[in-house]
Amino acid sequence: MAVASSPSSLHSHSKTSVTPRHSFSSPSRGFVKILSRSDFCAVGRVRAGTLRFHANPIKVSASAAPVMDKPDSRVSTVVDVDLGTRSYPIYIGPGLLDEPDLLQRHVHGKRVLVVTNTTIEPLYLDKVTKALTHGNESISVESVILPDGEQYKNMETLMKVFDKAIETRLDRRCTFVALGGGVIGDMCGFAAAAFLRGVNFIQIPTTLMAMVDSSVGGKTGINHPLGKNLIGAFYQPQCVLVDTDTLNTLPDRELASGIAEVVKYGLIRDAAFFEWLEKNMPALLARDPSALSYAIKRSCENKAEVVSLDEKESGLRATLNLGHTFGHAIETGAGYGQWLHGEAVAAGMVMAVDMSFRLGWIDETIQRRTLDILQQANLPITPPDMMTVDKFKNTMAVDKKVADGLLRLILLKGPLGNCVFTGDYDRNALDETLRAFCKS
Amino acid sequence: MAVASSPSSLHSHSKTSVTPRHSFSSPSRGFVKILSRSDFCAVGRVRAGTLRFHANPIKVSASAAPVMDKPDSRVSTVVDVDLGTRSYPIYIGPGLLDEPDLLQRHVHGKRVLVVTNTTIEPLYLDKVTKALTHGNESISVESVILPDGEQYKNMETLMKVFDKAIETRLDRRCTFVALGGGVIGDMCGFAAAAFLRGVNFIQIPTTLMAMVDSSVGGKTGINHPLGKNLIGAFYQPQCVLVDTDTLNTLPDRELASGIAEVVKYGLIRDAAFFEWLEKNMPALLARDPSALSYAIKRSCENKAEVVSLDEKESGLRATLNLGHTFGHAIETGAGYGQWLHGEAVAAGMVMAVDMSFRLGWIDETIQRRTLDILQQANLPITPPDMMTVDKFKNTMAVDKKVADGLLRLILLKGPLGNCVFTGDYDRNALDETLRAFCKS
Repeated sequence: MAVASSPSSLHSHSKTSVTPRHSFSSPSRGFVKILSRSDFCAVGRVRAGTLRFHANPIKVSASAAPVMDKPDSRVSTVVDVDLGTRSYPIYIGPGLLDEPDLLQRHVHGKRVLVVTNTTIEPLYLDKVTKALTHGNESISVESVILPDGEQYKNMETLMKVFDKAIETRLDRRCTFVALGGGVIGDMCGFAAAAFLRGVNFIQIPTTLMAMVDSSVGGKTGINHPLGKNLIGAFYQPQCVLVDTDTLNTLPDRELASGIAEVVKYGLIRDAAFFEWLEKNMPALLARDPSALSYAIKRSCENKAEVVSLDEKESGLRATLNLGHTFGHAIETGAGYGQWLHGEAVAAGMVMAVDMSFRLGWIDETIQRRTLDILQQANLPITPPDMMTVDKFKNTMAVDKKVADGLLRLILLKGPLGNCVFTGDYDRNALDETLRAFCKS
Repeated sequence: MAVASSPSSLHSHSKTSVTPRHSFSSPSRGFVKILSRSDFCAVGRVRAGTLRFHANPIKVSASAAPVMDKPDSRVSTVVDVDLGTRSYPIYIGPGLLDEPDLLQRHVHGKRVLVVTNTTIEPLYLDKVTKALTHGNESISVESVILPDGEQYKNMETLMKVFDKAIETRLDRRCTFVALGGGVIGDMCGFAAAAFLRGVNFIQIPTTLMAMVDSSVGGKTGINHPLGKNLIGAFYQPQCVLVDTDTLNTLPDRELASGIAEVVKYGLIRDAAFFEWLEKNMPALLARDPSALSYAIKRSCENKAEVVSLDEKESGLRATLNLGHTFGHAIETGAGYGQWLHGEAVAAGMVMAVDMSFRLGWIDETIQRRTLDILQQANLPITPPDMMTVDKFKNTMAVDKKVADGLLRLILLKGPLGNCVFTGDYDRNALDETLRAFCKS
């Protein structure tokens, strides 16, 4: 039985003992509950249009003692996303798809629609179907297999999910299951939000990107030809089940893409985690199970904290988009599916960090360490050649972070682990960054 | 200045004095606040699968004294929809589109997208644009003109709204305005719910149907080729503005369609209102402004009460769908746009009442009075000839009111003004009703 352990590098920080906030509905199962604690302090509106967030020093590390009442129970890490009546758990660990009870406790009704894609279906659909039905013959499972890729995250593909749900006459008491990466999670979640005005759904992410980012926080949606994620809903799942064994089938490039988002949490709010990543990048790239589990857990905790404080993205949550405004422009400009999301975010983060440095908001070591860690992860640190200054500006202007015509950006400011979300910056710095990274 | 007055027939009931629950944000305006009081008592789950609702006798009537602090203020009726942080007012009265402040206080941001159709655009778009911008030059108004009709309430048409919003680069701080009937309100509301995962919107209904039903309660969505309203969201507007003057351009058939929903409120929960309708149907058909205002107000109060108690339709709210399961089958079977919604609901209500009588749940006078009042309103009381028993059964099986394979129906039970939402009925009664109303 594998236990996601806290890497020793964290143990040098002060510890806070953590008590579970509530017990699980099924008393026959035991989980290690590792709760996140705030390492966040909102300093508030520093000046007009600027929200500034401090996150130093990190004050918590995870302490875990297995609680088991069944000999065959696997010990799993649970991160709670605290959203009042819409709260839900994220289960993290190896072999969780071999635990039928974990999934079944979150299924509403007797009918399930699994939404997956052509890549994942041959690998995991049977396993998930068995987990959903094992010991419970009354559950029926339908599935819809979508084409694989960001370029299919559109209305046309979404309609295939509705078609299947309606043709098979699913009613309100059904459960949608997203089995795949971020594209599947976003589309299945939006379909669940809109089908009959809302049915239950469960996320089973199979990419590192989806595990550490898109499956947490309830953002769902599809792309429009003119921009990413412009149509969607805030809609929370019943649970997220992260079986880390599924990472064994993930291509290297996809793994690196997920690592970009992991690095992001370090940059915006968790300096200790960034330092841990600097030391443990080789282990992550070698898919060391313990290192991966810890990185996923700490990423989910960071995201869960931010989402709990700002579900609908009125300010703080926007900081999770470090590098994303530049990154979205790259994805749109290069054509959806050419660059992986994390690859575009990596280059975008380098640009945001460059701009922060030009503004005099961070010192040079942060810029250097950002470049180093992304290169170590085999991630791109510049946009593709076809991206011109005009292309960037044009696409960034339709980004959701434009408020009343003012483009607000997430930029680093202060020591490592601190950022601001602001439209109050010298426009010249943006222009200089764009010119520095574009050939025309 | 017209004041929606309480018809004398209601004054025989016991009165409750009503105090405004909160004041409006703009202190310079005065409104008569007529608050609804519960005439509803949920008796609870009478037997498995049955929710039974009593609504007799009605215990409240409206008392209104104009409060005016500006000589040119129009006196308006306001019905509050009480949904906690998502509460909003419904303004009802003549000439409200000549009151720019009413609309402008609910506009968020500086950019507005008016969604309307080819029929309403030449009649009211200029007027609404003026109301939105009068005295406030910083507001810019875009519009998107959709084809008119239920047959266009689909994903293809919805995409035109997203296209316009994205092409004109609207951001999160914009406001969508639905100007038109129920189809426009449903599509604009769903577009507002999904654009950038949710922007503000305002309803300006221009049909009686939209005023008394679809603009109240936050149900938004589109049709699927296999069924009505299968894709959508619960999403509440900032306000609903009912300018009763817009009914002057409404065709007779559309007026009658709206009256079907008005009659419905009497049947399911408001016997006194049903009696008022029996006496005042000629005045409604003659478009007497005072009668129309009262009918709209009382309908909105009934709907607002139900929605406040059950926003997401877990039970009580379903009773608002009396006749709708049969009616949706008619609309789907006949092809969207052939029958108006209220026409289908009228025939559907006759079928539901017929079935209730066959079950022995109501006496014959209720059946007769239902037929009489619908005929008086020039509404159909039988489905079209092309509807067969099989067509009904097939379409009703994909209705949202099917839970775990059991078709639940809203049926009348007890004295006038009482209904149940149940799957616990003799299947023979349903079969007999279908055979009685279908030629094959």
